[in-house]
Amino acid sequence: MSLSSWPTGSAISFGGDYNPEQWSRDVWDEDVALMRQAGVNLVSVGIFSWGMLEVSEGVFDFAWLDELLDLLHANGIAVDLGTPTASPPAWFFAQYPQARVVAKDGTVQGFGSRGMASPSSPEYRAAAVRIATELAQRYAQHPAVVLWHVHNEYGAPVGEDFSPAAVTAFRVWLQARYGSLDELNAAWGTAFWGQRYTRWEHVGLPHATPSVANPAQRLDFARFSDHQLRACYIAERDAIRAHATQPITTNFMANECPGTDLFAWAREVDVVANDHYLTAADPRGHVGLALAADLTRSVAGGAPWLLMEHSTSAVNWQPRNVAKRAGEMARNSLSHLARGADGILFFQWRASRSGAEKFHSAMLPHAGTDSRVWREVVELGHSLQRLAPVQGSRVHADVAILWDAESFWAQDLEWRPSVDVQHRERVRAYYERLWRDGLTIDFVQPSQDLSGYRLVVAPASYLLRVQDAANLTAFVADGGTLLVSFFSGIVDEHDAVHQGGFLAPLREALGLTVEEFLPLRAGETARVSWTPDGAQAQELPADVWQDDIALDGAQVVGTYLDGPAAGRPAITRNAHGAGSAWYVSTRLDIDALAPVMERVYADARLAPAGLPFDVEVVTRRGADADFVVAINHSAEDVDLALGDGQELLGAAPVSGTLVVPAGSVAVLRTDARRVGGDGQP
Amino acid sequence: MSLSSWPTGSAISFGGDYNPEQWSRDVWDEDVALMRQAGVNLVSVGIFSWGMLEVSEGVFDFAWLDELLDLLHANGIAVDLGTPTASPPAWFFAQYPQARVVAKDGTVQGFGSRGMASPSSPEYRAAAVRIATELAQRYAQHPAVVLWHVHNEYGAPVGEDFSPAAVTAFRVWLQARYGSLDELNAAWGTAFWGQRYTRWEHVGLPHATPSVANPAQRLDFARFSDHQLRACYIAERDAIRAHATQPITTNFMANECPGTDLFAWAREVDVVANDHYLTAADPRGHVGLALAADLTRSVAGGAPWLLMEHSTSAVNWQPRNVAKRAGEMARNSLSHLARGADGILFFQWRASRSGAEKFHSAMLPHAGTDSRVWREVVELGHSLQRLAPVQGSRVHADVAILWDAESFWAQDLEWRPSVDVQHRERVRAYYERLWRDGLTIDFVQPSQDLSGYRLVVAPASYLLRVQDAANLTAFVADGGTLLVSFFSGIVDEHDAVHQGGFLAPLREALGLTVEEFLPLRAGETARVSWTPDGAQAQELPADVWQDDIALDGAQVVGTYLDGPAAGRPAITRNAHGAGSAWYVSTRLDIDALAPVMERVYADARLAPAGLPFDVEVVTRRGADADFVVAINHSAEDVDLALGDGQELLGAAPVSGTLVVPAGSVAVLRTDARRVGGDGQP
Amino acid sequence: MSLSSWPTGSAISFGGDYNPEQWSRDVWDEDVALMRQAGVNLVSVGIFSWGMLEVSEGVFDFAWLDELLDLLHANGIAVDLGTPTASPPAWFFAQYPQARVVAKDGTVQGFGSRGMASPSSPEYRAAAVRIATELAQRYAQHPAVVLWHVHNEYGAPVGEDFSPAAVTAFRVWLQARYGSLDELNAAWGTAFWGQRYTRWEHVGLPHATPSVANPAQRLDFARFSDHQLRACYIAERDAIRAHATQPITTNFMANECPGTDLFAWAREVDVVANDHYLTAADPRGHVGLALAADLTRSVAGGAPWLLMEHSTSAVNWQPRNVAKRAGEMARNSLSHLARGADGILFFQWRASRSGAEKFHSAMLPHAGTDSRVWREVVELGHSLQRLAPVQGSRVHADVAILWDAESFWAQDLEWRPSVDVQHRERVRAYYERLWRDGLTIDFVQPSQDLSGYRLVVAPASYLLRVQDAANLTAFVADGGTLLVSFFSGIVDEHDAVHQGGFLAPLREALGLTVEEFLPLRAGETARVSWTPDGAQAQELPADVWQDDIALDGAQVVGTYLDGPAAGRPAITRNAHGAGSAWYVSTRLDIDALAPVMERVYADARLAPAGLPFDVEVVTRRGADADFVVAINHSAEDVDLALGDGQELLGAAPVSGTLVVPAGSVAVLRTDARRVGGDGQP
Repeated sequence: MSLSSWPTGSAISFGGDYNPEQWSRDVWDEDVALMRQAGVNLVSVGIFSWGMLEVSEGVFDFAWLDELLDLLHANGIAVDLGTPTASPPAWFFAQYPQARVVAKDGTVQGFGSRGMASPSSPEYRAAAVRIATELAQRYAQHPAVVLWHVHNEYGAPVGEDFSPAAVTAFRVWLQARYGSLDELNAAWGTAFWGQRYTRWEHVGLPHATPSVANPAQRLDFARFSDHQLRACYIAERDAIRAHATQPITTNFMANECPGTDLFAWAREVDVVANDHYLTAADPRGHVGLALAADLTRSVAGGAPWLLMEHSTSAVNWQPRNVAKRAGEMARNSLSHLARGADGILFFQWRASRSGAEKFHSAMLPHAGTDSRVWREVVELGHSLQRLAPVQGSRVHADVAILWDAESFWAQDLEWRPSVDVQHRERVRAYYERLWRDGLTIDFVQPSQDLSGYRLVVAPASYLLRVQDAANLTAFVADGGTLLVSFFSGIVDEHDAVHQGGFLAPLREALGLTVEEFLPLRAGETARVSWTPDGAQAQELPADVWQDDIALDGAQVVGTYLDGPAAGRPAITRNAHGAGSAWYVSTRLDIDALAPVMERVYADARLAPAGLPFDVEVVTRRGADADFVVAINHSAEDVDLALGDGQELLGAAPVSGTLVVPAGSVAVLRTDARRVGGDGQP
Repeated sequence: MSLSSWPTGSAISFGGDYNPEQWSRDVWDEDVALMRQAGVNLVSVGIFSWGMLEVSEGVFDFAWLDELLDLLHANGIAVDLGTPTASPPAWFFAQYPQARVVAKDGTVQGFGSRGMASPSSPEYRAAAVRIATELAQRYAQHPAVVLWHVHNEYGAPVGEDFSPAAVTAFRVWLQARYGSLDELNAAWGTAFWGQRYTRWEHVGLPHATPSVANPAQRLDFARFSDHQLRACYIAERDAIRAHATQPITTNFMANECPGTDLFAWAREVDVVANDHYLTAADPRGHVGLALAADLTRSVAGGAPWLLMEHSTSAVNWQPRNVAKRAGEMARNSLSHLARGADGILFFQWRASRSGAEKFHSAMLPHAGTDSRVWREVVELGHSLQRLAPVQGSRVHADVAILWDAESFWAQDLEWRPSVDVQHRERVRAYYERLWRDGLTIDFVQPSQDLSGYRLVVAPASYLLRVQDAANLTAFVADGGTLLVSFFSGIVDEHDAVHQGGFLAPLREALGLTVEEFLPLRAGETARVSWTPDGAQAQELPADVWQDDIALDGAQVVGTYLDGPAAGRPAITRNAHGAGSAWYVSTRLDIDALAPVMERVYADARLAPAGLPFDVEVVTRRGADADFVVAINHSAEDVDLALGDGQELLGAAPVSGTLVVPAGSVAVLRTDARRVGGDGQP
Repeated sequence: MSLSSWPTGSAISFGGDYNPEQWSRDVWDEDVALMRQAGVNLVSVGIFSWGMLEVSEGVFDFAWLDELLDLLHANGIAVDLGTPTASPPAWFFAQYPQARVVAKDGTVQGFGSRGMASPSSPEYRAAAVRIATELAQRYAQHPAVVLWHVHNEYGAPVGEDFSPAAVTAFRVWLQARYGSLDELNAAWGTAFWGQRYTRWEHVGLPHATPSVANPAQRLDFARFSDHQLRACYIAERDAIRAHATQPITTNFMANECPGTDLFAWAREVDVVANDHYLTAADPRGHVGLALAADLTRSVAGGAPWLLMEHSTSAVNWQPRNVAKRAGEMARNSLSHLARGADGILFFQWRASRSGAEKFHSAMLPHAGTDSRVWREVVELGHSLQRLAPVQGSRVHADVAILWDAESFWAQDLEWRPSVDVQHRERVRAYYERLWRDGLTIDFVQPSQDLSGYRLVVAPASYLLRVQDAANLTAFVADGGTLLVSFFSGIVDEHDAVHQGGFLAPLREALGLTVEEFLPLRAGETARVSWTPDGAQAQELPADVWQDDIALDGAQVVGTYLDGPAAGRPAITRNAHGAGSAWYVSTRLDIDALAPVMERVYADARLAPAGLPFDVEVVTRRGADADFVVAINHSAEDVDLALGDGQELLGAAPVSGTLVVPAGSVAVLRTDARRVGGDGQP
């Protein structure tokens, strides 16, 4: 990934998806005037325009897009030009019915909604490259175009495809991966249940089956599905690159589109872009937002990224589409910015009167400009102009959480020991514990260089390659602190149980293995007696899981008081080399994790920030200054001692205490002086 | 619709579905004898007899039906002769497999249950017309036949069909509706998500799609599905009419078969017939019954109608098929009669020993004649004979509730702001409030002449055409009282948000628009401070929804105390012309609606009847007399002052107070003297 | 069924499924050494080996199996040799795609899981017979082979098949069953809903239909599905028998595979074998185990049977796979033995590293030999050696519970009076009441000779043939005691309601019929006033159901205090001939059943054993001695007075009181002296 300069130069990008094809020409002029009023400097166009641009196969009509780009450029609004390949036209599906996506049960997915054709369809691939090429040839030199936007949200609404084209492509992909059927049979463990293959043409997709399908086949199908989507992206990207020099991206759905391995995707884009929507049913959705933003920054390798879509208020596709209240859109936007976003864009500019998303909020709502939403959009645009100095600064973290899409895919397969074990839940719980403690977090793959971190947390590393376990072990030996949660280190890359048993690859680091899983019954709880120093024991509530641990050197710091493992180890600490490794063999909630993590922080020489509840503070480090973003999600005003400097939003000098009113955000420019993340010593 | 005389003359019709083909010939004689004992004067025959009448294609066997009709006629029992087209024979599906209904996901619906063939199948249409013609030719002159019964419960069990025949027919229907693809593209808003059509043959049904299908396409598919069913009916009706002069009907399922637009259907029948079954899980199913009966009378334009099917006791297709208790069948029957039914029929005469509905109650149960059910059937037959004078009298209502099938279809599509908003629930809640207040209710379409009503209630008018909004506005201007519940007036006939925003077409009448929807979270409640006169505030509990209201003249009479709209308007009243219009922007339960409706009634010059709880009183107006039907659903005897007259069931004179024992019914014949509905001043 | 000698001679069989094809050759040697250490004397091999044995159509590779059998034999381990037909190879499905199973909705079930091909496929049948023949020819004389194991768990994971081959076979089966279409039309009641058939080729399977399918057709399809599976078994069995003399079996799933009629299956095997797995969510799973074991013994006609599979600890396919705790595996194993099992085998020997069941426990777990599970396996092996004298002894019962697969199939169809009525639940409730009272129970078909029993309980006999009702009536007349629970005696073998109404065939025995069902609403409860002697009334809680009973001589011993039948009979007793018949018309839980059953026992001259809670005692009668197995499932040590003798596990003499520690098992050898079951007088 490379980016020579930010698409909107030294300004924070601000704008949204713009779909003028839904409106008459006179509306365009009003749109552009209002965009100027709001400070919009970047809009995404063309994302759903295939049918308007290629009216029948090979017949193009670019006149309206020419006019649109000229109009935008004349008004100083830059363009993120989309390829429309997420939604092929009606004629495409009529011409190539074999390119339709097929569901696992054989249901053919028809036209009339959104969602791409089969990513394995050669006809689709060719048509996508053709329209991308046409667009690149025509607009590569257009001065409005500062960024290319390939497709839309790869993997949503469907990432898996069971069409005949997918079967053919899967065999090709497997042949490249395994070379021989012997290798495939070994990797898939086909001796189990008599699934041995003797010819490549007998190998198929994990279609509907009488009982569960081979899990290694399923895992490979997940890898393949991700690969096929990415191959589509790469084909379009390369077609554009052949003609154009602007950066190229596609919009991810971090943490919401589990079928895509974002670390792999990030390597293929020039700038990482992400879409994020709050989950209305989550009472602490702002923590989920922070997680998604940190994940996006992490896959971007720490580089600035674009928030390509979020919403000014409610969305339309959740069961209950709760509207944002006054100030919430700004808090959301600046939370993303605090965690590395240098652009804040929305879906979409003007609310659609028709179609499936007419109840999705927009920058310009159905109620028009005399509305709360519009007034806050204008205010946000002005705020972002004041934050231009932040552009290009970076976030530093001392703590990393392991994130491995392949492990999540494997864990999500059927017939795991307990349906109550959910990797998402554990990642979020550990993330929120760290978030509440004021620590800034990166997400890392288990194979990465971890030497820059003091603490690495593995909330859900079910699939852990032997070499990655060695990487973690070396991290500990070199002085790092590692925390591993239960149901980690179970299988290798083929979903095969590790030789030596559960957790065997981490035995040296953790000083234990797991002899047997002891899942609890539905609703069953148990207590852990927490005794890290032989001092006064504390009882921690736990549920879902226990292990029967076979100690091999680890010190027991927590013991089960109840449940199938009553009297046996629950939480352990193992000194290994210059570092230490912790194991937590049960589910502790965010509160119960507090005393445990306090001791883990001590090992890692980390200090919680001591912030008031629901106040988050993140620092972006610039070349000459630090930018400390303080967001008060609570209903109380708070006083923060973040050092002296200039508050950029209010343009006021700060000396000593910064007051952040309830629901508000402050951005303090201070001297660049911090040596660790979060002011860590 | 026209009916020169009632099918059973001056008698209330009494009987049920009669399926003698399930029994041996000797049972027929017993049946007829028992029918006479019970006072049965009308039976429906032939409804599932296609395979017995047309034994192979074009080969007919009418001998058994000849004998049956002669037998019935000889015993003075009139016949409602059915066409058997709801259940084509096995040979039909074997011969024309392409006529089978196809589900949305492509599953072909096979033979062996019930349910018609594809209503779009030309082969089915031809076969249905053929058997109808044969029946009409043969029996048009038979003296037993007093009514024709086309098909059975159109739309149940399936109303939607995704067969190839349906695709073809849908295109034809769309061409007729829109004329050009430009019109279709505009109506469907195909610019959204890139769905523009350039050829008619690319347009399809809303089959299974990766994400939600175009909502305007879905709405048109609902219209089309209803239209296709009705076209089948019309084809059969016209085939019969070519030979026969008796009235022709088909049995509706008011309020239970949402795919049929009953107002449109009612225009095509000579007499409206309805099937009604209690919902066992509804502890107040008798209110649902009243609603269905009022709806049936309303679609009949106030004319007497036939209760074609209900049950003597339990049905068999609900999760828990609760039996009726002593007196309940009579109360149910006379509730229908009170609301306009001049015939009380059952499914079915004799309980079937075999088949899917063997556990459905019948007039003659499995237990035989020595049974509670049979004794009550005989008693009901005698009661109806005493009520012959009621035949032909009519019900008058001062209050109307808006009912628009198209709006319900549109509201039921995916991706609405909150899954907790259900039109059925709101209609029932407002209906039950009015029912408890003793008011008689009509259902009306929003395009109808409303001048006969004092109060019009719009519990759920999501889709509201601009011209229909103008009709409501004129109703208010002319002195009417209008009450509009939230999530009304949102979209036009193409499911497109109204220009000007939510509720814009009613802005003048209501004195407001809605800036933003504020759905509540699952289980979240809020309070409304109800202050209609600035007097002592009352707190009303509410849930599900709030609006961010932009006032434009309306007076605030209720304010939110909690929730996202805390401190903002909840309930408003707007004086417009000679009338007033109320807006309730949240969900109030039946009790919380009481104080609100009390004020609304005052505006409308209506007075609640002041009846004891769970006692309903409805008046049918005859040429010379009123018939006041009082039904006591409670467990206490009640005294009612309904005037002097003659109680028909007990044949006793009443002077002053009428005692209606717990669980009983009284029918008081009084002088015709009332000027408003329900004795309104 | 015949068995000249037990497969492992005078030893209790001990071992499990052995799948060495998943492991390298060096592991085999370790396996055999460990088997000897544990006392394993029987392993099942080849069950999933088709693809390893027939590498392409007609091309066989037996070398590895030759080597394996020789190795096992050399180490004194006998072999239960499986035919691998539960999982045809990939090449088979590629060659014969038409042999794939098709689901009701038309979804074709693909390769890559487990589950047989269509049992109606001629290609599958031929291929299965071929591989079975090859195995029999090659290994009939191999000294290791002591038993043949056909296929695996017929009916799991899928028993129903809607493939074209099934349609063809169904017609053939129906022609054989009914002879003429007139008979079929009468049996299926096709006059209902117009389903009359005029040609055999119009008759199909109960595929997806718009509403529910014909219930008699569905019932016949259940019979057919069971028949087709059994026909597959018989074809393989006969192919083996043509060459081999060892006994032949297949492993049932008693009580867990409802599609198979085990009484019919048992007639076709030489020794009954059963698989049993605890339901983790059932807090009293050991009672379910006892039920399954008693059922297995019952279908075996009382002969010793093999526990072919159970688990050493957790399984992997339940929502939460709870591990067994110390001693639980032994208690489970010896509970099976107590109820007639002469072999205790497990799935599987060594835990699989790959595949769908890698988290299923095994005799040799992932953790290896230094593990709790392994140590308990070794201990169990030694215990079973001490129990060799038990081999061949038999269990006697005085109580029988009716079990009729056809009745369960019929009851499970759609549109029954209440979804809360579940035959499984009632069978288990009555079973557990009897279990708690220390009585030993047989399961019997209603057509069986019942003269050996004192009490017959019919918890759920919805479908009851007239001749079977006569059998029950004669049992009562001859002095037996019968208890019938509600929703019994409703339909005949064609799912047609009995002539004369509900329960009519038992009218003479019970002294009543049922006029109407009165199901209760969800969550509704009612009380029964229990007054068996006119003495002090006791209130029993009840729910789900009431009947409107028409008495015809029965004495009322319980009356409803609430609900739709308030004041009417709830429980009755009828003296008939030399016996008595009880009717319980509502759902009583296990506690509420206690006083009722106490009176029923008195009629039957049975005495509850008076055991401590959760202690079970079962006696196996040998030629020369009784073996009294006492299992203490509780957390308290118990003292039992079971007579004098020798405790076999501890090899200690017992005089007077036997102490069974908490969680432990004792097996007392005593003189053969008991005359009734459970020491009954």
